[in-house]
Amino acid sequence: MTFDQWTRQVLDRVESALDHYLPAADVQPAPLHDAMRYAVLGGGKRVRPLLCHAAGELTNAAPEALDAAACALEMIHVYSLVHDDMPCMDDDDMRRGKPTVHVKYDEPTALLVGDALQSQAFVTLTSDVFDAQHQASLVRELALASGSIGMAGGQAIDLASVGHALTREQLETMHRLKTGALLRAAVRMGALAGETPSADTLAALDKYAAAVGLAFQVVDDILDVTADSATLGKTAGKDAKDGKPTYVSIIGLDASRALAQQLRADAHAALEPFGARAQRLAELADLVVNRVS
Amino acid sequence: MTFDQWTRQVLDRVESALDHYLPAADVQPAPLHDAMRYAVLGGGKRVRPLLCHAAGELTNAAPEALDAAACALEMIHVYSLVHDDMPCMDDDDMRRGKPTVHVKYDEPTALLVGDALQSQAFVTLTSDVFDAQHQASLVRELALASGSIGMAGGQAIDLASVGHALTREQLETMHRLKTGALLRAAVRMGALAGETPSADTLAALDKYAAAVGLAFQVVDDILDVTADSATLGKTAGKDAKDGKPTYVSIIGLDASRALAQQLRADAHAALEPFGARAQRLAELADLVVNRVS
Repeated sequence: MTFDQWTRQVLDRVESALDHYLPAADVQPAPLHDAMRYAVLGGGKRVRPLLCHAAGELTNAAPEALDAAACALEMIHVYSLVHDDMPCMDDDDMRRGKPTVHVKYDEPTALLVGDALQSQAFVTLTSDVFDAQHQASLVRELALASGSIGMAGGQAIDLASVGHALTREQLETMHRLKTGALLRAAVRMGALAGETPSADTLAALDKYAAAVGLAFQVVDDILDVTADSATLGKTAGKDAKDGKPTYVSIIGLDASRALAQQLRADAHAALEPFGARAQRLAELADLVVNRVS
Repeated sequence: MTFDQWTRQVLDRVESALDHYLPAADVQPAPLHDAMRYAVLGGGKRVRPLLCHAAGELTNAAPEALDAAACALEMIHVYSLVHDDMPCMDDDDMRRGKPTVHVKYDEPTALLVGDALQSQAFVTLTSDVFDAQHQASLVRELALASGSIGMAGGQAIDLASVGHALTREQLETMHRLKTGALLRAAVRMGALAGETPSADTLAALDKYAAAVGLAFQVVDDILDVTADSATLGKTAGKDAKDGKPTYVSIIGLDASRALAQQLRADAHAALEPFGARAQRLAELADLVVNRVS
């Protein structure tokens, strides 16, 4: 199977699974469920679901288990986008090529959609495709990655940093939490969804995820200044306009491009112990670095 | 032990446990952790923790396990208060006798405090005071009660109802989700934290929780028109001013008082199969109905 075929297959599975794990649009309260589905379905690169499925190949995880873990990850990711786009945060009108939730519906709905998607992620991880041991370890992994010492904490550091000159280390700490923690969780949860991974396996995956997570952000910063809004599906040039520190603003465009390639090489190096079983993870590192949107 | 002594003992335990299960104020990002602790510690009636501890007596749950379950419940409850108080929702300045989080800090912080408290609840439920089986069942219980078919769903119905005439049934559906779901989870999680409860036990507890949950709301509506802001620790008369349908506005003050007493009797009746072991649950039903704040 080519990488493209594999990707398409996983995306199809995950889209069906999201449809399954989200409450149907006619379940009460229907307007909330309609808005949750609007936020989640039919858009996004689904990077976290892809990483989760790819990592699951290392521990022979069942595809159905990976689907559920991938859906939980995507629900958390989307909840964070919905809240980040709200007027009191980044105040953005466009996401994944569509009006943001607070524009399409209203602010209270956006707040509740985010809140309810977070809960739904944990409902999904405690479905019966997992035994209790897997449910417990996956919930802990996702909750830690989402909360104050993970994604939400990174968002807090990001907000505090607007208009301030950050050092490269401070920028890295912020991204390690804001986007890195959930990408790392995607890789680890894929592995944890199967046969219990060894400490060495998890350590190698952490190295891989750290490189891919940082690369993802460096490329985001590059695209913010080089791509247009239509291609990105969100407002381009926003970080520069908002005075947010980025890799491009701190080390420049050329050095940012070189850094992205170095991180790609680091990600590949971390996968060496796994040989061919890590093919999809290696290809995903390439995808993250070479993407144009 | 008198009920007062028991209550004080549980509240002391829960306060210490909340201090333990919340990240310390000097853990990075410190400003977010400071705000999370401000929101949670040193205030509130702790009704859900009390119900959880009381129900745990039916299944011999370990006090340390009940502390963790109680903390997770309180974190979810407080996150919902922090988000509900935000300007785009109820826009309230005062809560538990203190400035609300978005007033004391700012709106983005309030949003992130709520988000991170929800994650922290699930971190708490996957701590090692529970085995994997208990972690999994408690997480599922709390996630379902918090999300779109529970608390967040009730909040959505509440928002949609402002300025509309609701029937008493519609009002009841709204409250069954908005406050009832988490109160029910408090009772069930207390029982689930110990020896596996029978289906009959859970059914009886559901009846008890339904009566107590509704009584709680009826009394809230009564207090909104009869108590002052200083006693309540939040703005009195707010529901009437905001045009929110309440029991008092639909059935009147006297009928609301009679209903609260009827629900108290229903709660006691549901506890009959348990005899003296349900003493604290019975006393808590009295507390909920007779409270003055």
